Amino acid sequence: MRLHGIDNFLITGKSDLMYFVGIDGPAALLVSTKKNNNTLFVPPLSRHAAETYAPDFLEVVTTKMDERFNVVVAESIGSIGGVTAVDEMSLEDYRFVSGLLASTELRPGMGIIWELRELKDEYEVGAIRRACEVADRAMRSAYEILYPGITENEIKAEIVSEIYRSGGERLAFDVIVASGPRTALPHGPLQRAEERDIPLREGDAVMIDLGAVVEGYHSDVTRTFFIGRPDTQFASAYEAVVAAKDAAEQYIKPETLCGYPDAVARNKLAEHALSEYFMHSLGHGVGLDIHEPPRMSPTSSEKLAANMVLTCEPGVYIKDRWGIRVEDTLLVTERGPERLTKFNYSEYIIT
Amino acid sequence: MRLHGIDNFLITGKSDLMYFVGIDGPAALLVSTKKNNNTLFVPPLSRHAAETYAPDFLEVVTTKMDERFNVVVAESIGSIGGVTAVDEMSLEDYRFVSGLLASTELRPGMGIIWELRELKDEYEVGAIRRACEVADRAMRSAYEILYPGITENEIKAEIVSEIYRSGGERLAFDVIVASGPRTALPHGPLQRAEERDIPLREGDAVMIDLGAVVEGYHSDVTRTFFIGRPDTQFASAYEAVVAAKDAAEQYIKPETLCGYPDAVARNKLAEHALSEYFMHSLGHGVGLDIHEPPRMSPTSSEKLAANMVLTCEPGVYIKDRWGIRVEDTLLVTERGPERLTKFNYSEYIIT
Repeated sequence: MRLHGIDNFLITGKSDLMYFVGIDGPAALLVSTKKNNNTLFVPPLSRHAAETYAPDFLEVVTTKMDERFNVVVAESIGSIGGVTAVDEMSLEDYRFVSGLLASTELRPGMGIIWELRELKDEYEVGAIRRACEVADRAMRSAYEILYPGITENEIKAEIVSEIYRSGGERLAFDVIVASGPRTALPHGPLQRAEERDIPLREGDAVMIDLGAVVEGYHSDVTRTFFIGRPDTQFASAYEAVVAAKDAAEQYIKPETLCGYPDAVARNKLAEHALSEYFMHSLGHGVGLDIHEPPRMSPTSSEKLAANMVLTCEPGVYIKDRWGIRVEDTLLVTERGPERLTKFNYSEYIIT
Repeated sequence: MRLHGIDNFLITGKSDLMYFVGIDGPAALLVSTKKNNNTLFVPPLSRHAAETYAPDFLEVVTTKMDERFNVVVAESIGSIGGVTAVDEMSLEDYRFVSGLLASTELRPGMGIIWELRELKDEYEVGAIRRACEVADRAMRSAYEILYPGITENEIKAEIVSEIYRSGGERLAFDVIVASGPRTALPHGPLQRAEERDIPLREGDAVMIDLGAVVEGYHSDVTRTFFIGRPDTQFASAYEAVVAAKDAAEQYIKPETLCGYPDAVARNKLAEHALSEYFMHSLGHGVGLDIHEPPRMSPTSSEKLAANMVLTCEPGVYIKDRWGIRVEDTLLVTERGPERLTKFNYSEYIIT
């Protein structure tokens, strides 16, 4: 905080609270370099959880979480004074609290927190590792029931059930199971009611994107399968996506620019005249949130570092026909990336 | 917008995009009273989805969703001029876009959108009704496997699987299954790894809070059960919570202050010396988000209106012993509330 010229930090984001005090809100943590004790404001709703789980060095103050809440927090900040950074806040709350603070400057400070959260310690890597194991088990359970006739929602039911059975505490995000031309909608292909019960058919691509949460930490894995014999265009595109992923991973190591592996993947796809169909970035950080910094995107100017955890997920999406994405969660080490999700992707044909 | 003195509205919130254009982002919708056409900015990632699902009257502009995105949107706003409201934005983006707009004022406008989203039309009520049916089926499937020996996570697996099997498109929120003293942590009782596999035992309270999403709309229902014979303190507290709920619902009707049903419930619990153990508000709106305005809380000054959908969920939580909450999703009608979740709560004892 001193390095950034900040006297106080007001933290209300769910994941940030989890990171710093081990409870996931609603609450507000006020840290100050000008005081010896730090304060955790909690609504009556969360008092027991705070008393049970929050670290001892925090003073827990119970206060109702209504209009009054912002006033209480602002009074507390005002009485300390100085420059106060905040992690995240609704625009209304930000303007309201700023208005209450005559002599204290409020400024966005999420970037400072990401500098910490981007680098995972041993405990965090352990949790992500376990979340990846759960994801692998869920992918396997889906793989085992992929046959013509089963519907997307039946596959989803199997996946979510397996995530909980395997010790996941929740889903990392809503599981994506898309088949046929809907695989060409890269993310969250919105399901209309009439699409939900469409059964898989011979000749369908099937894209499954899933993740689990363990101890608050996420995993993220995508596999694309094909029911029956794919034509040469699909087969060669699949091989190109895998080649792009493997090539990019050669460059996922400390000190490399985050944009470079993305460029390598894009270049590899260009060799197959497919780069125009890869219309998202190569990957994103994973931790207490499913999408975190850093981004591996063409415009990213950040550098990779050891102990970052991120996805590598090249894809190719041909409108009205099919899409292919292969994604793993990786740990950046001095020796290159370690794949934390391990489900096989060399065999994707279901016959 | 004219009524609120606003010329442009910039909409980037996931649920707001869903509400106005039927896609769930990432995207930015720019509506202006000063122009004939409205613009939907989408990253390449979402272009196919936008073309497939967005209404015809929108001009779809594809632009990368990186640092450049805010610049493109700001240039577009700047070229129109006037006062621009935004629904939600990170503080960093808000400051960045504000900085780019010399002559145009940017202001928070989520309150204006809530005036619309709070009142559900027939289509929305239909979707919520179906989401409530899915929730009821999931609650029934959990109820049917409640016996000593089953673990919280096994119950969760059954619930999530049933939600997908019954046509839910996703979970409304992470399912809460808490047993024993953990039921006394009102919301999201954080599960440590070692707590996840604890089996239900005779003498345990079990709290299940779940919801489903259908067509983007949520449902929310909680039931509390007891394994074996409850002592008189638990039994009378359960009856008090039910009485509080029934009493409060008498006043959930148009023109009533949102704080009044909360006061009625609190007062009823006070008759049993339990009001101090009810440490959250009575209910919240439900729609495209799981928690929406209005709040039924002691400090809420809003009025209820026909076609609002909200929860009624009194609870009592005795630290280190047990908690009880009974919650339904209700539609406010001229004749009072209609319960959209219908799972029985008069019989809660599992023997």
